[in-house]
Amino acid sequence: MNKRFVFYMLGRILVIEAVLMLLPFVVGLIYSEASTWWFLLVSSATFVVGLGLMLLFKKSDKTLFAREGFAVVALSWIVMSLFGALPFYLSGTIHSFTDAFFETVSGFTTTGASILPNIEALDRCMLFWRSFTHWIGGMGILVFMMAIMPSESGRNVHIMRAEMPGPVVGKVAPRVRETAKILYLVYIVMTVVMVLFLWAGDMDLFESLVHTFGTAGTGGFSTRADSIGGYSAYSQWVITVFMLLFGVNFNLYCLILIKRIKAAVKSTELWCYIGIVAASVIAVTINIATTMANVYGNFSDVVRHSAFQVASIITTSGFSTVDFNLWPEFSKMILVVLMFIGGCAGSTAGGLKVSRVMMMFKGIYRDLRRMIHPRSVSSVRFEGKTLEKATLHSVNGYVVVYMIVFFAIMLVISLEPFGLETAFTATAACFNNVGPGLGEVGPAGSFAGFSNLSTWILSFAMLLGRLEIFPVLLTFSPLTWAKK
Amino acid sequence: MNKRFVFYMLGRILVIEAVLMLLPFVVGLIYSEASTWWFLLVSSATFVVGLGLMLLFKKSDKTLFAREGFAVVALSWIVMSLFGALPFYLSGTIHSFTDAFFETVSGFTTTGASILPNIEALDRCMLFWRSFTHWIGGMGILVFMMAIMPSESGRNVHIMRAEMPGPVVGKVAPRVRETAKILYLVYIVMTVVMVLFLWAGDMDLFESLVHTFGTAGTGGFSTRADSIGGYSAYSQWVITVFMLLFGVNFNLYCLILIKRIKAAVKSTELWCYIGIVAASVIAVTINIATTMANVYGNFSDVVRHSAFQVASIITTSGFSTVDFNLWPEFSKMILVVLMFIGGCAGSTAGGLKVSRVMMMFKGIYRDLRRMIHPRSVSSVRFEGKTLEKATLHSVNGYVVVYMIVFFAIMLVISLEPFGLETAFTATAACFNNVGPGLGEVGPAGSFAGFSNLSTWILSFAMLLGRLEIFPVLLTFSPLTWAKK
Repeated sequence: MNKRFVFYMLGRILVIEAVLMLLPFVVGLIYSEASTWWFLLVSSATFVVGLGLMLLFKKSDKTLFAREGFAVVALSWIVMSLFGALPFYLSGTIHSFTDAFFETVSGFTTTGASILPNIEALDRCMLFWRSFTHWIGGMGILVFMMAIMPSESGRNVHIMRAEMPGPVVGKVAPRVRETAKILYLVYIVMTVVMVLFLWAGDMDLFESLVHTFGTAGTGGFSTRADSIGGYSAYSQWVITVFMLLFGVNFNLYCLILIKRIKAAVKSTELWCYIGIVAASVIAVTINIATTMANVYGNFSDVVRHSAFQVASIITTSGFSTVDFNLWPEFSKMILVVLMFIGGCAGSTAGGLKVSRVMMMFKGIYRDLRRMIHPRSVSSVRFEGKTLEKATLHSVNGYVVVYMIVFFAIMLVISLEPFGLETAFTATAACFNNVGPGLGEVGPAGSFAGFSNLSTWILSFAMLLGRLEIFPVLLTFSPLTWAKK
Repeated sequence: MNKRFVFYMLGRILVIEAVLMLLPFVVGLIYSEASTWWFLLVSSATFVVGLGLMLLFKKSDKTLFAREGFAVVALSWIVMSLFGALPFYLSGTIHSFTDAFFETVSGFTTTGASILPNIEALDRCMLFWRSFTHWIGGMGILVFMMAIMPSESGRNVHIMRAEMPGPVVGKVAPRVRETAKILYLVYIVMTVVMVLFLWAGDMDLFESLVHTFGTAGTGGFSTRADSIGGYSAYSQWVITVFMLLFGVNFNLYCLILIKRIKAAVKSTELWCYIGIVAASVIAVTINIATTMANVYGNFSDVVRHSAFQVASIITTSGFSTVDFNLWPEFSKMILVVLMFIGGCAGSTAGGLKVSRVMMMFKGIYRDLRRMIHPRSVSSVRFEGKTLEKATLHSVNGYVVVYMIVFFAIMLVISLEPFGLETAFTATAACFNNVGPGLGEVGPAGSFAGFSNLSTWILSFAMLLGRLEIFPVLLTFSPLTWAKK
């Protein structure tokens, strides 16, 4: 284990975070908020610590193996959250450090689960930083890092592999740094476009920025307790569309940029994603229209709320326009299933990812075929290529570890007195980086009622989910830190 | 597809079932119950249909491939349940055929889920048949069949493979028929011993028989609405011990019979099973003792109830001595996790099976190792042998299909208005062949409130779980029935 290099990288990351913290500071200055000076203070402290680490471990060996990559990724999310939580805690916005850490991890992992019962009471600089962490976390701190980091002979490959969410089948640009730059550009352009769309509606610039951060990172922090419920139908539709767009594999946007539009449109994952969304919207719309006709006046409202909630949950954003905890069981269960599916691989969404779910089904079909015709050679195709057995096996292996970790977390959370629905969906909402669940942690509730133990465990669950388990497990495994 | 042979085998099975139905008829005669004549009638009809099928398809080709094996297994459970449900339905004991079928599938699959709100109102012949289906289902109708079926050059191998629950690593007797006979013998001897133990307590012979059937098959049907709650502590401990014994891999008993006791004691699955049981009992005992001290008077009662419920759920029996639906969340969640783990492979228990769960963990450990040391060759050992990669992959593949089927069933069940806890545990209790769940379907409740659609889906879930999914899926797949 090349510990020196890991520390050097963590130093770099803290320096970046220190710079990013100046943005909420400026926001606070604009609105003349006293609490904003904490950002300047924490930013300075973070800068000093980061620079110190960089200078101390400057002369490190730059060789990077898989384990160093995993450790850098996992530890940087943790370190960023620890420092990022300080403004909330020191300013007294959040009274317990455990809760402040949870809120910040929830931000950086683009989860959007909140322990704040009264969001409207927060200063704007705090609200800005809270949502800005979504945006930073969105494309991954390290893809972000990579784009502005000096290139050095492919040493970023392992970080990239650990960072990119979902099983990536095709590679767009052969050079990692180039890819990162393109992804970063797409991300920024889409963010700007969305801000303009929202600003054109009933949101002011501040609200437009905050909600765009939450959408781009598929996070879900809002400025209001009722999330998007109080905004116009126009704003709700804009967010619906952009949530879905940010849930698409960013490689497809890159393909469109380099004018390979045909290849982008051929993506079976894209069509499967569209199909799941369409089917879910139709099912929820019918279910709501037939059982809650008295609650939502006209049909177009039902369609809008169905589409918004489906888009919000499958992309693991977690915004809401209504309290879907009050919906009939069937609609709620569809949302629970969508939590686990998640968005497309290579997007900012969490969950298992659509391509992985597709591969699960392809693997099952292959197994069934082989049971009937044991001697036949059957290959599985995906996105126009033959899928290697190893890929199918690693997908299944991931699902198994995913299930075991899920149940282990849920078992601890069930020490809370809230019942199975809350324990199950709180775990699912954090582990899949969705945000709100059902029951106690529904859109109208919060994670405020959980004990410190559960709050730490759920923070860990968000990290595990965001980094797809293995980097975190490996970082905390003695195997990784062994001398030889 | 050799359809003729499949029909011939189904005929055989019906003839056997007709003979077995004479037992409840005799019980009814002893207690002079009028409803018992339905057993004679249905038995005769079943015999005629069975014999008809046998004669009609006598001259069939005896070649048996995997797909015929799967079809015979899946269809015989369905056909036996269809005919087995008739006495309940025709006698008016159960008013709807859907419910009667559910109750019978629940019997043959050794699930023990019931739609009967008032068990005490049933005639004894009905109660006897209800529990006897557990005993028949217990070791699998086809292992049962095989032991009394004329041997013909290994043609039973595929049925055996489809029938044996869990991934079987070691084989005891090289010849399938011999194995079946030994298993059958062990099963009968253990049944007799248990009846004697129970009879020596506060149960009469009838009650001893019925509860032994439910224990041997790890089914869980009782003669009383409060299950084992009203019997003495002695009876409760006897059932606890025997439930655990019937949850052990029967291969181990065979090893002991042929005096290879050392090999039996070395079984890591056995020790893992004991470890899970012990840890669960300790955790539940502490949880109950600290939160419900006022409900259960003294500590020995707490230990007994904890041990009973843990044994009942991990072996997927489903008996109960208390309404564990009223237990604190943490204890309930432990029981939910045990539902999924299930007993040992090669036992009468359902669930994923202990050995499969162990292999899941071994697979994860192997994956983690390979991520840190990509070029190292690491083999995984299990029960003293090197585990082939193919076995690990097929275990993971099974878990994936298991999870997908589970969520698909739960989605349909959530059309009921009972909430997530009930939908989740009703699905888990049926799919893992446990019986009772939590909420609406807790030990004090029943499945009576479900719609016809849900009742059929849950019947199907019990079959899928009992036969480990693939035989049932294949039987209903067009691929299987294709000409070539």
